[in-house]
Amino acid sequence: MSRILVINPNSSVDMTRDIDAGLDVLRRNGGSEITCMTLAEGPREIETQEDVERVVLPVQNTIRQNEADGYVISCFSDPGLVLARETASRPVVGIAESSFLAALGLGHLFGVVAIHNRSIPRHMRNIRALGLEHRLAGDRALDIGVAEVRDAGVVDRVAKVGRTLRDEDHADVIILGCAGMGIYRTAIEDMLGIPVIDPTQVAVARLMGVIALGYARVA
Amino acid sequence: MSRILVINPNSSVDMTRDIDAGLDVLRRNGGSEITCMTLAEGPREIETQEDVERVVLPVQNTIRQNEADGYVISCFSDPGLVLARETASRPVVGIAESSFLAALGLGHLFGVVAIHNRSIPRHMRNIRALGLEHRLAGDRALDIGVAEVRDAGVVDRVAKVGRTLRDEDHADVIILGCAGMGIYRTAIEDMLGIPVIDPTQVAVARLMGVIALGYARVA
Amino acid sequence: MSRILVINPNSSVDMTRDIDAGLDVLRRNGGSEITCMTLAEGPREIETQEDVERVVLPVQNTIRQNEADGYVISCFSDPGLVLARETASRPVVGIAESSFLAALGLGHLFGVVAIHNRSIPRHMRNIRALGLEHRLAGDRALDIGVAEVRDAGVVDRVAKVGRTLRDEDHADVIILGCAGMGIYRTAIEDMLGIPVIDPTQVAVARLMGVIALGYARVA
Amino acid sequence: MSRILVINPNSSVDMTRDIDAGLDVLRRNGGSEITCMTLAEGPREIETQEDVERVVLPVQNTIRQNEADGYVISCFSDPGLVLARETASRPVVGIAESSFLAALGLGHLFGVVAIHNRSIPRHMRNIRALGLEHRLAGDRALDIGVAEVRDAGVVDRVAKVGRTLRDEDHADVIILGCAGMGIYRTAIEDMLGIPVIDPTQVAVARLMGVIALGYARVA
Amino acid sequence: MSRILVINPNSSVDMTRDIDAGLDVLRRNGGSEITCMTLAEGPREIETQEDVERVVLPVQNTIRQNEADGYVISCFSDPGLVLARETASRPVVGIAESSFLAALGLGHLFGVVAIHNRSIPRHMRNIRALGLEHRLAGDRALDIGVAEVRDAGVVDRVAKVGRTLRDEDHADVIILGCAGMGIYRTAIEDMLGIPVIDPTQVAVARLMGVIALGYARVA
Amino acid sequence: MSRILVINPNSSVDMTRDIDAGLDVLRRNGGSEITCMTLAEGPREIETQEDVERVVLPVQNTIRQNEADGYVISCFSDPGLVLARETASRPVVGIAESSFLAALGLGHLFGVVAIHNRSIPRHMRNIRALGLEHRLAGDRALDIGVAEVRDAGVVDRVAKVGRTLRDEDHADVIILGCAGMGIYRTAIEDMLGIPVIDPTQVAVARLMGVIALGYARVA
Repeated sequence: MSRILVINPNSSVDMTRDIDAGLDVLRRNGGSEITCMTLAEGPREIETQEDVERVVLPVQNTIRQNEADGYVISCFSDPGLVLARETASRPVVGIAESSFLAALGLGHLFGVVAIHNRSIPRHMRNIRALGLEHRLAGDRALDIGVAEVRDAGVVDRVAKVGRTLRDEDHADVIILGCAGMGIYRTAIEDMLGIPVIDPTQVAVARLMGVIALGYARVA
Repeated sequence: MSRILVINPNSSVDMTRDIDAGLDVLRRNGGSEITCMTLAEGPREIETQEDVERVVLPVQNTIRQNEADGYVISCFSDPGLVLARETASRPVVGIAESSFLAALGLGHLFGVVAIHNRSIPRHMRNIRALGLEHRLAGDRALDIGVAEVRDAGVVDRVAKVGRTLRDEDHADVIILGCAGMGIYRTAIEDMLGIPVIDPTQVAVARLMGVIALGYARVA
Repeated sequence: MSRILVINPNSSVDMTRDIDAGLDVLRRNGGSEITCMTLAEGPREIETQEDVERVVLPVQNTIRQNEADGYVISCFSDPGLVLARETASRPVVGIAESSFLAALGLGHLFGVVAIHNRSIPRHMRNIRALGLEHRLAGDRALDIGVAEVRDAGVVDRVAKVGRTLRDEDHADVIILGCAGMGIYRTAIEDMLGIPVIDPTQVAVARLMGVIALGYARVA
Repeated sequence: MSRILVINPNSSVDMTRDIDAGLDVLRRNGGSEITCMTLAEGPREIETQEDVERVVLPVQNTIRQNEADGYVISCFSDPGLVLARETASRPVVGIAESSFLAALGLGHLFGVVAIHNRSIPRHMRNIRALGLEHRLAGDRALDIGVAEVRDAGVVDRVAKVGRTLRDEDHADVIILGCAGMGIYRTAIEDMLGIPVIDPTQVAVARLMGVIALGYARVA
Repeated sequence: MSRILVINPNSSVDMTRDIDAGLDVLRRNGGSEITCMTLAEGPREIETQEDVERVVLPVQNTIRQNEADGYVISCFSDPGLVLARETASRPVVGIAESSFLAALGLGHLFGVVAIHNRSIPRHMRNIRALGLEHRLAGDRALDIGVAEVRDAGVVDRVAKVGRTLRDEDHADVIILGCAGMGIYRTAIEDMLGIPVIDPTQVAVARLMGVIALGYARVA
Repeated sequence: MSRILVINPNSSVDMTRDIDAGLDVLRRNGGSEITCMTLAEGPREIETQEDVERVVLPVQNTIRQNEADGYVISCFSDPGLVLARETASRPVVGIAESSFLAALGLGHLFGVVAIHNRSIPRHMRNIRALGLEHRLAGDRALDIGVAEVRDAGVVDRVAKVGRTLRDEDHADVIILGCAGMGIYRTAIEDMLGIPVIDPTQVAVARLMGVIALGYARVA
């Protein structure tokens, strides 16, 4: 049985618990063992580029010190992904890039619900770097703190932005631009009537396929 | 346990057997049950557009008459995919589109080994329709009959075209543009030193993820 | 004198009559003989992908059984176009692809008036497959039945959508995304003040040029 | 009967004669009357940007002083096209832009046979300005003087470059990047086995359609 | 000390004075000597394509007759740029192309404030010709005469259009699509809170770098 | 007088000296004061992604501790650029992004001479992220160590790769994909006959313009 390690690069044990709960749907008899861990030395939230940079080496160390058949970096900034891939001997996936790839297979035009307005240019650079700009419907922000992502009202706020992406930008699949919201995915899907992507879920599903097919690396 | 039906839309029982053998890597305790079936009324090979069109309604019927949690149309022309999606209540994936999506996650630029030169414009239209042309390194043909795909020498011929895609077109991942070659995948990978994609394998892996995550449709 | 056969692949004789009337502008002394015919075995309307697929072989047969110097498939889904081209020895054009090409020569950004919202992703795939996405201003739907296309109020409804494409999406040429509206073209043009394209008209004009110049095939 | 004026903006009466002969294929009973005229004040050849600029106003004057239903500027630099369109009340087409549009309807990837290497960046800017770069296979130069275009050996030289465009760049339709070669078109086509485009021929054919359909302007 | 000649190709001495004042920021001890001159034979304003064409040869003559280390053609239509480059032995830059290039380095998506609606398609062709369409947020017009550019209220009008580009089109850098507004740049910047580009300023700054680095030509 | 700090993020004092010498061309009476400094805690060379990540925070600290009017990070991996921009109150530019922008203004298609083959996918991601892929002619590697960049034979090796980029890939401007080669720029330019870009030179020139025009940040 293959083992997948999902790393939450911030120090919030609550978020790790939510990420973990959101992955239950992928836990099956005989399937991969999926373990979520918290980066103890990570910041409480990853909000700034400095937060991102400060976890790059700790994420690499975590991968080095925890043997597994594959690794997921569960933060929508994909912190440390390039370095982790350079040094790990097993496949490492980021949740942002995984969500963009998954969106191509679930709809014609994807919309992204960003946490902050200031993240949107970074998303755009990522999407263009992947050569996928022709499939992007739009990227719109909740403009809340990462902490509020776990608040009661988040489902309604996400659904409101999702409706704008669907109705004004013509998105027919929506990416939740943050980790830890997998537990709300089907609720939001019911409200919007189109597929909704939790980035960590699709990252794990992608990694399960990569491992099963025996690819040693992804890129 | 979910059930996946892989439909070989030509009538070659030998090819169905090879497709089936190439999927063993995805059969695990407790995983999806993967069944391959031959379209009895299909042509011996799908080589012309007329071959493609003649199997569109039979593929739809096969899906209607065989309950499963998801379907793979295992021919690199993706025959009948649009219709099957319109009418099926469960997800249906084609192997060509699945291979293009999978390639994005395994390398920077993908190369396609086509069976025939005359298929290349169709591949290009597909790749552009998916908005992925910036990730295509090249598409080069073996220029053999579909039947010869199952010949002894095919591995060497594919590896030769693959080397040209790698060395002249800068591909760092190669798609085998035909069903039934999964059994040769690791041999070709060893010869080329870069990831090689069997379209049916990645289509089944994609479908396993889609089913596990509870998406009713793909697009 | 060259002969052009325009095939209405649905069974509506009324629509064929409208298509025919819309082509009078192209009938000149000594010009091509333009004949419109109804596909008797076609559905009353082509609305679903199943409607499209069911006319593919009948369209091919019609072309085989009716000698001409060139053929137009007069339905905005371009049903059976790829197969017809493979087997016909004379040029065959579809009206959707012809309208996209014609739009490039009449304006800077084109807008499409779709009949249904659900057709828009198919249009987008076509436009991307042709590599023309940078020239698309927008695609907006009337959201009426194909039958209503022939209703009294259709001109006003099309003009309303056309105005949105012109004023919000910056289109300076509008494509009518359906056959049979050529008779209304100049009325809509007068209301919008920018060129309007009837796809069958430009398909026939294109074919007249292709035939005159002696090209045996188009692609 | 509509009248089309084809303006050769250089002063070579011999080239005008060749252009005229190349258009015989479009002269039919009852069709458009096609007249070719030489710009007496034009340079012997249009080779430099200064040659281009010096004919801009004379081309405009010629259009003003010669009433017709449409105008073709028959030089692959499309000199004066933007100005002519601004001031003429009837449609004006250039042969370069017309050839790029025509190529989209005759093949999947087009190749251009340029006269000079130094023209290639200008072609590329044109093709990108039209948003068509994804359909360009390649642009390769004969590297001869415009005068030599009318030499005996030109067919062989063009065919040689055309073969490279076809075999190395994967072009399946070839544009002759110069006026006056229409008389050689079918010979070159026979040598290459793929469609070849004489820009003046397709410009006239395009204009015939535009006039017949009653469009007052093109863009 | 290098000498840069900035040519205002219209005959408005007032506009030349404004252009000149807008360049004071680039005048430093020991820096380039920047001289602005009026094209006496130019039209009062450059509004039509005919205005553009009529200054092409005069601009070339002006460059020939005034020795300098580099030249700026200070009109957002870049009139005569291609010809000037062909014949000048020193670098010549246009202000429109320079503003598009500068925008890439100051923001993620640029917006253009056009004077007239009818200029927008020309801007789009330029931007596509440069291959930069993926970085364009939008292009919106003031719809005033060039003369009014120098009116009292222009700052407010520009700021209003700039806000729309920023808030609806997601531009994070704004180009003033006209010469002579450099004196208002910082005022507009203060109102918008994002970088604003005066095309002549960035053209001169670009040319200073090109000259300092010893490049004899730009392209 | 403005002060520009050029940071060599590796610890090679010899390379810093070469970078410094390559910038003499930009030192003029009354111009910016350009200072080059070595990151003492940097690795001997920046070859791996780990090398890149390890200098991110030191580069930020260096900027914090050294007041200047603008900063250049002089390594073709642009290490720490995103973080430095987030935290610095003055503009920070990277040399790779600056070289891509500069190339747009010096030629039609740019070629990149990479040090290593393994850097090419990273360059491609950068170029796509900037939306500039349509202007890239090709990227070819010397395949030498960074240390060898300072060897006697480097000019010939670079010129050889540059010729291939020019003759096979149609580049008309060449980027030297490494810091410290500015001292060889004109020699290589003489050998190739087309403009050659030293990334640090164009980064400094860009920054001089940005500072002179009073922009507080770049992006």
